[in-house]
Amino acid sequence: MHTYASALVALSLSVSTTAVMAQTTDHADIALKSDTIAWDFVEGITTEVGPRQAGTEAEARGRAWAVRWLNANGFTNVADEAFMMDTWVRGTETAEIIAPFPQPFHVTALGTSAATPAGGITAEVVEFKTFDALRAAPAGSLKGKIAYISHSMTPTQNGSQYGFAGPARWVGASVAASKGAVASVIKSIGTDMHRNPHTGGTTFADGVSPIPAGALSLPDAANLERMFARAKGKPVTMKLVLTPRDLGQTRSGNVVGEIVGRDPSLPPVLLACHIDSWDLGTGAMDDGAGCGIISAAARHASMANQPLRTIRVLFAGAEETGLWGSKAYAAAHADEKIGVGLESDFGADRIWQIETNFGASNPELVKKLAAAVARFGVASSAATATGGADINISREQGGAIIDLQQDGTRYFDLHHTPDDTLDKIDPVQLRQNVAVWTAVVQVLANETSPIMGAAQPAR
Amino acid sequence: MHTYASALVALSLSVSTTAVMAQTTDHADIALKSDTIAWDFVEGITTEVGPRQAGTEAEARGRAWAVRWLNANGFTNVADEAFMMDTWVRGTETAEIIAPFPQPFHVTALGTSAATPAGGITAEVVEFKTFDALRAAPAGSLKGKIAYISHSMTPTQNGSQYGFAGPARWVGASVAASKGAVASVIKSIGTDMHRNPHTGGTTFADGVSPIPAGALSLPDAANLERMFARAKGKPVTMKLVLTPRDLGQTRSGNVVGEIVGRDPSLPPVLLACHIDSWDLGTGAMDDGAGCGIISAAARHASMANQPLRTIRVLFAGAEETGLWGSKAYAAAHADEKIGVGLESDFGADRIWQIETNFGASNPELVKKLAAAVARFGVASSAATATGGADINISREQGGAIIDLQQDGTRYFDLHHTPDDTLDKIDPVQLRQNVAVWTAVVQVLANETSPIMGAAQPAR
Repeated sequence: MHTYASALVALSLSVSTTAVMAQTTDHADIALKSDTIAWDFVEGITTEVGPRQAGTEAEARGRAWAVRWLNANGFTNVADEAFMMDTWVRGTETAEIIAPFPQPFHVTALGTSAATPAGGITAEVVEFKTFDALRAAPAGSLKGKIAYISHSMTPTQNGSQYGFAGPARWVGASVAASKGAVASVIKSIGTDMHRNPHTGGTTFADGVSPIPAGALSLPDAANLERMFARAKGKPVTMKLVLTPRDLGQTRSGNVVGEIVGRDPSLPPVLLACHIDSWDLGTGAMDDGAGCGIISAAARHASMANQPLRTIRVLFAGAEETGLWGSKAYAAAHADEKIGVGLESDFGADRIWQIETNFGASNPELVKKLAAAVARFGVASSAATATGGADINISREQGGAIIDLQQDGTRYFDLHHTPDDTLDKIDPVQLRQNVAVWTAVVQVLANETSPIMGAAQPAR
Repeated sequence: MHTYASALVALSLSVSTTAVMAQTTDHADIALKSDTIAWDFVEGITTEVGPRQAGTEAEARGRAWAVRWLNANGFTNVADEAFMMDTWVRGTETAEIIAPFPQPFHVTALGTSAATPAGGITAEVVEFKTFDALRAAPAGSLKGKIAYISHSMTPTQNGSQYGFAGPARWVGASVAASKGAVASVIKSIGTDMHRNPHTGGTTFADGVSPIPAGALSLPDAANLERMFARAKGKPVTMKLVLTPRDLGQTRSGNVVGEIVGRDPSLPPVLLACHIDSWDLGTGAMDDGAGCGIISAAARHASMANQPLRTIRVLFAGAEETGLWGSKAYAAAHADEKIGVGLESDFGADRIWQIETNFGASNPELVKKLAAAVARFGVASSAATATGGADINISREQGGAIIDLQQDGTRYFDLHHTPDDTLDKIDPVQLRQNVAVWTAVVQVLANETSPIMGAAQPAR
């Protein structure tokens, strides 16, 4: 017994030493402590390129920069896969209250906004406290008016209030136009209080002629609402100048690169982000960080050993203006089976939860992933992953999807604003992202069985 | 003993009841709980007028608004005392890096900046890490260049880093011009990280021809500094367009109002702020709040009883562009002795310290003031008050001055930016300001002896 007990102790020490050693040489842990790859990407692209609006020469410079960077950072099969898209660009944008309390406001046009005449539109502003109130307005009741849509958006960790407040931006202008409005302005879809309005796309329903559609900064929206209260029923008149224009079809592209696996016949692990940004900021949180995170994870996960499966990064073009890149990639690669798709496009703050869409078909892999990320403070959730905007291909294939949920509490302070700049990225949280992604990619890229489980059902 | 003891107890109860009653009816305490006057002023002027740049029609609207407000809020002898001033107004302002990393920056012109041609100036940017480094540059070394001046500014409670970082703005352009620079841009004098550059006046020395002088937002300045590092010695070229213009002499004015005292022959208590603001924000923290605070205090301090001395409020015009109003007031009222001067011009955050310049000549009054403000968390300091910009008259008369020091930790996040808007004001801290000012004004306006002490020496 003594000998056996000693042997057990020795074995236990040995196992534990091995476990400790394995842990200290795990590349996810190395990434947490010392990754510089993600920061190098996001610092580089925000400094050397800056804003990268979809379909413009700035996005093209961004793609060219990313191609160079991927080639210089150990990726192969790097390419810029072209597609064509409809491109809209900003012009002059000013707003001012003419009466009863003249003063200038900060406004920005929403993507696909129509243009005002160069001299602007001057009209009475009609206030709607919510998007539902606008929808309830009688037909024709906004004839000759500018509709103003307010709402209230609270910061949330999971970003869920974007869905709650977002419709005012996504379709508010269309609803206002359908009731006769000559223009619309919304309170920016955001949670900050700075004079930096939030842009973003808006969509006009079929049969509705686009109108000029702007967003006021939140302090300006608050000021406008005080004006309504103080005007005591007198008309509040705004002069709005928005002169965006359509460029027609221009070239965009998806930048791809690979770490080729030992068995390239296995479906690859697809890591996605988007390379374009809105024009107002420098695309740091949205989504330079995401491209930096996935690229860094691909590298860390393959530093010790060539992975079994190919790891492919997809820097989608033209996400912001309608998922052009994601759609083009899904169409161009429809016949190539993807093993699993993941996207990073929610800033650079800490990951706190992992979700998959294969909990039922492959519970063992879910357990393995949960164990791999637990030490970084990431909980496993039973919620079903639905994937981000840039992995249409995985959704279309009914394939495996994983969502790594980031803390979105301050994301909508910055989203689509001039303030989306490098200084907003916390290097410590950025490295936590890289560590979690590395841990996940290490598991996925070395998974021998089908990721959706043996059945791998089509959806 | 029993009787005597009972009497003592009764006396003690009676004193304590009186003390409690006195305290609960003190108007400073009422102000702390429920003042609405200060908020009404600052909400009103930021909403109904907005930006009020010195010498412009917007400042004139601000003065007219303030005159109406003072008349409606219990002040008498309300007037707008005219003076003439040199007026400079902003034009177009854009900055972009042309090479090696093209992207747009956020810039604003500094007050009295010269104009570039309409098409701008394109030139190499030379970086100076500090203002002292610029001063050390050899004569003629900036010929044909744009000087960029950096610095680092840390938030401080007492605002002392404004003196440390400020020279880059105050005289940086002049020093750059004297060495041949065709323009200068500085990192904004501020402590925020938003794309809202900080304006403010700059001054050119005698014999130095003004050059275009701008300030970059802090995120843009950080980006420019990264560009210098990444350019590795290649020239960094900027195109700068600033087209401000001088309007020559225009009318401004000082708005005054009074709560007349029981003995108008006694030198009045002068409470000052400034009515003008920079044009970028709505002048909420700088200095709508100050005018609201002093007006509310004047009202609270005279609600229970007519004060002994007259309380005069001075909303100085044209402070931001060179203390024109303060100088004009001192000149116009040189023969009217002021009892004591105080100014509120440092936002609306909590007051934490009181300073006077009569500690030696009137220690009893200093004790009385210290006792009056202690319950609001305000400590008494032995530092000598020097007074704010708008009480030149008190300094010129060698008169009594009190400084009520506000917490400036976040003041330079907002100072001279588009972000100086009502939403930045915390109503609880605003009311603490009104309470402290009310407590101080109650003492001063009922002080029978000379405030500088019996001697009241001329300085």
